[in-house]
Amino acid sequence: MGSKQSHGEDYQMKKQSVGVGLLGLGVVGGQVAKGLLERAEVLSESVGCPLVLRKIKVLPPDLSRPLAREIDSHLFTTDADQFFAEPGIDIVVEAIGGEFPALDYIKRALSSGKQVVTSNKEVIAKHGEELTILAQQHQGGLRFEASAGGGIPLITPIQRDLVANRINGIYAIINGTTNYILTRMAKEGIDFTVALKSAQSLGFAEANPENDIEGMDAAYKLAILASLAFHSPVHPQDIYREGISKLGSRDFQYARELGFAIKLLAIAKQYDNSIEVRVHPVFIPEDSLLAKVDGVNNGILVEGDLVGEVLFYGEGAGGVPTSSAVLADIVSAAQDVVHGVGSHWQIKPSKVIKPISDIETRYYLRMNVADRPGVLAQISKILGDHQISIYSVIQKVTDKVTQTAEIVIMTHPSKEASMKVALQEVAELSTVKEISNFIRVEE
Amino acid sequence: MGSKQSHGEDYQMKKQSVGVGLLGLGVVGGQVAKGLLERAEVLSESVGCPLVLRKIKVLPPDLSRPLAREIDSHLFTTDADQFFAEPGIDIVVEAIGGEFPALDYIKRALSSGKQVVTSNKEVIAKHGEELTILAQQHQGGLRFEASAGGGIPLITPIQRDLVANRINGIYAIINGTTNYILTRMAKEGIDFTVALKSAQSLGFAEANPENDIEGMDAAYKLAILASLAFHSPVHPQDIYREGISKLGSRDFQYARELGFAIKLLAIAKQYDNSIEVRVHPVFIPEDSLLAKVDGVNNGILVEGDLVGEVLFYGEGAGGVPTSSAVLADIVSAAQDVVHGVGSHWQIKPSKVIKPISDIETRYYLRMNVADRPGVLAQISKILGDHQISIYSVIQKVTDKVTQTAEIVIMTHPSKEASMKVALQEVAELSTVKEISNFIRVEE
Repeated sequence: MGSKQSHGEDYQMKKQSVGVGLLGLGVVGGQVAKGLLERAEVLSESVGCPLVLRKIKVLPPDLSRPLAREIDSHLFTTDADQFFAEPGIDIVVEAIGGEFPALDYIKRALSSGKQVVTSNKEVIAKHGEELTILAQQHQGGLRFEASAGGGIPLITPIQRDLVANRINGIYAIINGTTNYILTRMAKEGIDFTVALKSAQSLGFAEANPENDIEGMDAAYKLAILASLAFHSPVHPQDIYREGISKLGSRDFQYARELGFAIKLLAIAKQYDNSIEVRVHPVFIPEDSLLAKVDGVNNGILVEGDLVGEVLFYGEGAGGVPTSSAVLADIVSAAQDVVHGVGSHWQIKPSKVIKPISDIETRYYLRMNVADRPGVLAQISKILGDHQISIYSVIQKVTDKVTQTAEIVIMTHPSKEASMKVALQEVAELSTVKEISNFIRVEE
Repeated sequence: MGSKQSHGEDYQMKKQSVGVGLLGLGVVGGQVAKGLLERAEVLSESVGCPLVLRKIKVLPPDLSRPLAREIDSHLFTTDADQFFAEPGIDIVVEAIGGEFPALDYIKRALSSGKQVVTSNKEVIAKHGEELTILAQQHQGGLRFEASAGGGIPLITPIQRDLVANRINGIYAIINGTTNYILTRMAKEGIDFTVALKSAQSLGFAEANPENDIEGMDAAYKLAILASLAFHSPVHPQDIYREGISKLGSRDFQYARELGFAIKLLAIAKQYDNSIEVRVHPVFIPEDSLLAKVDGVNNGILVEGDLVGEVLFYGEGAGGVPTSSAVLADIVSAAQDVVHGVGSHWQIKPSKVIKPISDIETRYYLRMNVADRPGVLAQISKILGDHQISIYSVIQKVTDKVTQTAEIVIMTHPSKEASMKVALQEVAELSTVKEISNFIRVEE
């Protein structure tokens, strides 16, 4: 096995220290480096021997950051080959982010039997299965607690603490940017574009916010959580996805009147032979705990057949909170290096992913119609023809000039496929000016 | 090492199965037995070899329970010596509850190098330190995830996932019975005795509810959590404790008016050289997440210097949810049996426990006074003399017949010691009929 450790008692007695190599010195990487250097004593105690930062692979601009000046310059290299040639690195921490070159570096580390710790949701969501197999083949390990929910303990609790459960569902507010925007819209009655601009100016949303507001980021995280919870590979492209840009201040007003909050939820449900995975805005009861998860915070509700509903809540992003999870993974990986145990991600044959058209839920509909008798009867007939029954109708604002009225309909649980067809027919009615919004309800 | 396994690779290859012995077949034990038998396949997959239930020590009456009839009668014994003589038990699960004989059985198992899993909060709170040392001496292990928060992942996340954090505080609703009673009082405006009786008739409170309503149960759990979080032994008798029986429906009414909820909180704070641990009713802001933890549920907020505030929520009791945590511990212990790794609970020299008189917080005071001019001035003067400044005063109900009024005072942060002396002086005023309640505020 060359320079790679052999497992077991002999090795345990010889191991003098565990070496860490860090890829990247950005928002997360910088805090991880800081933690490894400043908390060396505490972390080493947990490992049982010194935990030593041996090398940091950076890009040239990183070297001018204030943090870089606090770190011994001998630790830095800008050359990947030099990084991987460094002897004495047992654990490679990837904190570059994005798919490439992060994926290549992780593969390179795993192929040489290293323990890998990463916070990279995109790489794990897209390639987690393949990387796990690679880790097992080379007796290394792969840990990614920080890839979903920042520092909130989530992935290990699902893998370890809920191991005896059949997990039936995950309902997660897992993107801080969108939750911040929705919270502002709900509390201040402002429009999406105003809330987004404010979030950008305050640093809660990126200049190019598409990944967040269109639900891609949430979908990556959901792919990871669902794969682990259901022991079946779920890929980002399996996930039905709608963003938050279509939500209007009116929707928040009506939601409140109806007793609901609006949240961007990442939802995964497990059935006997299939899985349902989707990310979109939903109505949730305003007295539910998830409805109280405000601002940039995350809240992840996991439903297990033994444990019932458990919720994990906290800051879901940011360099410092995320470093908490990365450092915990490093300690755990180091314990494996010392004791010679590999990590597990059980992969079984994949389950069928339900198409969105097969889901069944309640719906909120907002539409603009001609303000004249008989319109509601027309709409109700179409819905009824498609086995969609109405739970409540509220006629809202009437505009005397245009002679239009806004109506809000809540339905009973209905098939999405039927709803889509019905809505098409409703939209074709000459009395219906616009179907302004259509939001699913989770209760 | 006799029949005890030797660690390392050779052993790993020989291990054909991991044997479990169960002590107790009550509310938790019964569900653990069920889980081990019905979920054997899933659990064995996680361990990497079969996990086999080999013996159950019961009391004679247990044998007539419906569950007992579903289990192979060869597994039962009523004799402890026979249980401990059974070969092939690697993991002893203690689900008897109470201090004795549970403590003796756990010691006996640890002394023979076994892995022990327990849900026993009283034993761990009182003897956790000593048992951990015993486990280390004999190369066994001790796990107790189910001893606080039922099935909610809590102890392992604190030990593992937050390992890099300095934990500054724990704020926990950790007793379902009292939270159920307080929720009923808050929502229905009923009195304590009415809510307690109802809870008893519904099975949410025991016939002898003292352990719960006087905060003993919460104190046991807090002792465990604080010991782990602060790496310093905290014993139940170190914890300042007040129960919920003095709370009146008036207090809930005033709390709501002031923007607060009333909860029984278990609080632990860590300072540079000391620790503060207490269990008592507190005012918490009604828009905080903890204020939304209702009914029999538990909510545990942990504040770490890296991760910020994280909250763990779920059902904190019951046989089925608790079995989720016990089974997870069994799987983890079994992985250690296979791989030969011991569990860790780092114990360091103990920190000073702050007496309750040293704490500083805001206070809510409710008192009955003579309805005449100058009374408030008298009270304010006494409070001022003791450096207690008033944040707000509300004069409530006035009784024309007795010529008394009820006043509610919220203070700015003040020293508990000063407050106690001031309250004594206030009580001696001839114009003060009664100090009806005194509740600390956590914000």
